[in-house]
Amino acid sequence: MPEARPGRGASRGDIEVNGAESLMRTAAAAGIELCLANPGTTEMPLVAALDAVPRMRAVLGLFEGVCTGAADGYARLARRPALTLLHLGPGLANGLANLHNARRARSPVVNLVGDQATWHRPFDAPLTSDIESLAAPVSGWMRTTRAAAQLASDFRDAVAAATAAPGAVATLVVPADCQWETGSRPQRVSHPVGLASVDAARVEAAAQRLRDGRGALLLGGDALCEPGLRAAARAAAACGARVFCETFPARIERGRGLPRLERLPYFPEQASEALSGFGSVVLAGATPPVAFFGYRGGASLLAPAERCLALAEPGEDSAEALDALAQALGAGASWPEPTTADPLPTLTGPLDPERLGAVLAAAQPEGAIVVDEGATSGGSWWRCAEQAPPHTTLTLTGGAIGQGLPCATGAALACPDRPVISLQADGSGLYTVQALWTQAREGLDVTTLVCANRAYRILQIEMHRAGVAEPGPRARSLTDLTQPTLDWVALARGFGVPGARVETAEALAAELAKARAEPGPRLIEALL
Amino acid sequence: MPEARPGRGASRGDIEVNGAESLMRTAAAAGIELCLANPGTTEMPLVAALDAVPRMRAVLGLFEGVCTGAADGYARLARRPALTLLHLGPGLANGLANLHNARRARSPVVNLVGDQATWHRPFDAPLTSDIESLAAPVSGWMRTTRAAAQLASDFRDAVAAATAAPGAVATLVVPADCQWETGSRPQRVSHPVGLASVDAARVEAAAQRLRDGRGALLLGGDALCEPGLRAAARAAAACGARVFCETFPARIERGRGLPRLERLPYFPEQASEALSGFGSVVLAGATPPVAFFGYRGGASLLAPAERCLALAEPGEDSAEALDALAQALGAGASWPEPTTADPLPTLTGPLDPERLGAVLAAAQPEGAIVVDEGATSGGSWWRCAEQAPPHTTLTLTGGAIGQGLPCATGAALACPDRPVISLQADGSGLYTVQALWTQAREGLDVTTLVCANRAYRILQIEMHRAGVAEPGPRARSLTDLTQPTLDWVALARGFGVPGARVETAEALAAELAKARAEPGPRLIEALL
Repeated sequence: MPEARPGRGASRGDIEVNGAESLMRTAAAAGIELCLANPGTTEMPLVAALDAVPRMRAVLGLFEGVCTGAADGYARLARRPALTLLHLGPGLANGLANLHNARRARSPVVNLVGDQATWHRPFDAPLTSDIESLAAPVSGWMRTTRAAAQLASDFRDAVAAATAAPGAVATLVVPADCQWETGSRPQRVSHPVGLASVDAARVEAAAQRLRDGRGALLLGGDALCEPGLRAAARAAAACGARVFCETFPARIERGRGLPRLERLPYFPEQASEALSGFGSVVLAGATPPVAFFGYRGGASLLAPAERCLALAEPGEDSAEALDALAQALGAGASWPEPTTADPLPTLTGPLDPERLGAVLAAAQPEGAIVVDEGATSGGSWWRCAEQAPPHTTLTLTGGAIGQGLPCATGAALACPDRPVISLQADGSGLYTVQALWTQAREGLDVTTLVCANRAYRILQIEMHRAGVAEPGPRARSLTDLTQPTLDWVALARGFGVPGARVETAEALAAELAKARAEPGPRLIEALL
Repeated sequence: MPEARPGRGASRGDIEVNGAESLMRTAAAAGIELCLANPGTTEMPLVAALDAVPRMRAVLGLFEGVCTGAADGYARLARRPALTLLHLGPGLANGLANLHNARRARSPVVNLVGDQATWHRPFDAPLTSDIESLAAPVSGWMRTTRAAAQLASDFRDAVAAATAAPGAVATLVVPADCQWETGSRPQRVSHPVGLASVDAARVEAAAQRLRDGRGALLLGGDALCEPGLRAAARAAAACGARVFCETFPARIERGRGLPRLERLPYFPEQASEALSGFGSVVLAGATPPVAFFGYRGGASLLAPAERCLALAEPGEDSAEALDALAQALGAGASWPEPTTADPLPTLTGPLDPERLGAVLAAAQPEGAIVVDEGATSGGSWWRCAEQAPPHTTLTLTGGAIGQGLPCATGAALACPDRPVISLQADGSGLYTVQALWTQAREGLDVTTLVCANRAYRILQIEMHRAGVAEPGPRARSLTDLTQPTLDWVALARGFGVPGARVETAEALAAELAKARAEPGPRLIEALL
């Protein structure tokens, strides 16, 4: 039987290791500590090499979208990449939707995909397919390794591409023989290309636009970090501007004591209306806002191009630029803190989206990470969470549903000391429900709150928006999740996660308190 | 609010309908009766149009891989296409793995993917991506509609491409505005291009090779229908050839009274050995056999090219060619039926893969459809099923795991009067476990038998084959499905399917009898 002899131990001489180990040793030297894997036969040498380096955590996902979504969530918190490890074209395909979200979040991800041995590829064996064609739409960088001796340097280039500001998905396709044949010495990964500074002229141009008091700031990306938010609040106070954040930020800091901003509405008419009164829209970390979907007779741009001005684009240091803007506008060192609102009330009675949001906001501990894929059930929580203790929110950047549970998994892997709350629409949660098992296996402190309205509610709204006042029975059946109803508590138990079902505000509060008190994952199905 | 006014009723004049309805009316006229859908906002006019035609069944999958795998299973039984309806690039991505399997099965599938409105696409809204790049690797035909008036004719071309022998995945990308703008008259789909006849010279060439009594026949694709099998058995009896089937047939008829053949082994050394003694390997419906994976020092071709001869290629009428071959070899009208084996014994005691296979084979009713994604647990069943009543088997053509439960769903939709048995490895089953809900909603008579060995057993074998005698703890953790154990009965309950867990042969037999007696889906978790 052929032997690949992957090495097990970094002590052996450099020239002895195979390609797979040269890659893992390069990864370890670059400080990469997590591999989110759903491997197959063509990745066996890479799997074996995981044990050849110290401090590499190997986490199994039962579906590839769990791995890629977790890599996204991890990157948003850790601000450095994890590895994924996927099996050929179909394995990559299963991970693409959450790589799409990662791409839109500009999350650094090093996406490793095994392939057939180089010499076996032309024979078109059953699992062979065009991996590069599949990977291209989600990848900011992509390469297929041609020889084992090049694998470490290809990997080094992948890490550099993933981590260069603002961050990207870098896909490296690794044929099996390039893993098992003799590799090179591990390669040193250079310090990542950081955020670029914005020059003074651009800052002054933005300040000039805002001085008339008729401007708005639209923040996105890195501008939504705490320094960026504080600088934006100071600048806005100095010139009377309103401050918005993009509809689906990759990561935003919110809660008591933090500057408040308005979220750009989801539906384009409302978003256009929100931006319509401003002479200028100054963008920091955000791209010019466009409608999520085009509707008949509707516009694509939510603000005319001539009224938008980029202070800092993605990849530029928007927090620094906002600070410079505040100075240019003569802002003080502080900003007007919002008047302290009344504490969130203790609610009782049957749950609805309004009560659910308020109960969750009142219960969430300081420092929580909330992954919001609540969809139509999440709006109330977003509003109420302004009054919650400071916390970090991650949202559905690319619109590819099924991001929440995996992203929460990755966030918990990045921040084991912070509680993670996964606010999850029921329809969306089913796409990657296998993430619950990874949470159980890794003992992650994730509380999944399923908003069980038992419908694709957003599609019922969109059907109406499309002019279909009374959908026929077939159309109705495609947006309805009853018949049969889903039992989320049973699903959670099936994956090894304890759960409970609640129908009232007080029961939800009690279950959230229990989840907070107990370690490990828990699921709460909230009937709406 | 803009109105799309999709039509509801075929009675209105042709010129009034929108593009979506022109497509559905074309589909209905072509005899297409099933749409497997997981739609989103950009597909709402197509969803509304489902109610505009008679006899179009709309079936919801909670994950796109359920829809595409069901379309594959439906096509293998019905021998005509269903529609899929997927949402943009990420929705397609989630369905790609099972489209890969469908491509390898040469199943006719009309794969509809919505896209942003043509005028909105350039603005790169969050859900926008390069759909054609994603679709190309699985599509035998692909087009993006440019205008509503062309949608019906584009769809007509898609159906023609999907149904031309031997069958293909035809992907039509449909921008939202091409659905809601005014469409054309429905288009008539011409009769599909059928299987091509093989000329006499090719038959005689094959006969000449086989007359020395040192040949083998390798059957695949359409040759594995009952007439093909009978013709092959007659030809083989006349010349002393051995008859093999490809390792992973899309569909094969087996059981008592049907000709028996040998299955080409999965591991390449064994497959090469099985074919090594033959002077010629005559292919009917099968392509030259290649190793599933390349191994260090291993071969790609399982039989030297100069020893292979194609009697009938995919797309040619291999059953007809085999009949002509039998005549050329002077075969009689009948073939030597195998001696009747002893009936399968009644087994008791703890389950293992051997007992599981024997119990299932003994229990399966005549006319059953067995979808075999049993992986390492399925070999015993394959052997025992020779003695079972006549039945149809579908296998994992493309190696993209997660095919079983959706394919069984589609088979049951195609053949409501036949019992469907889904022989399912536990690891593979988790990729598309959401199929259980569709089985429950549609009341499908599917019995899912989960082979719960709680491991990716094949990868444990492959790790050993890769020369890793003692994997480290990280490598081991990636092939192990304990910690926590999965509770398949709870998962099934979560999706609305009743289930039971068994640990002995007699308990399995009792549960199979119960499943057969009761309508609707059922799941049996067999602990191995």
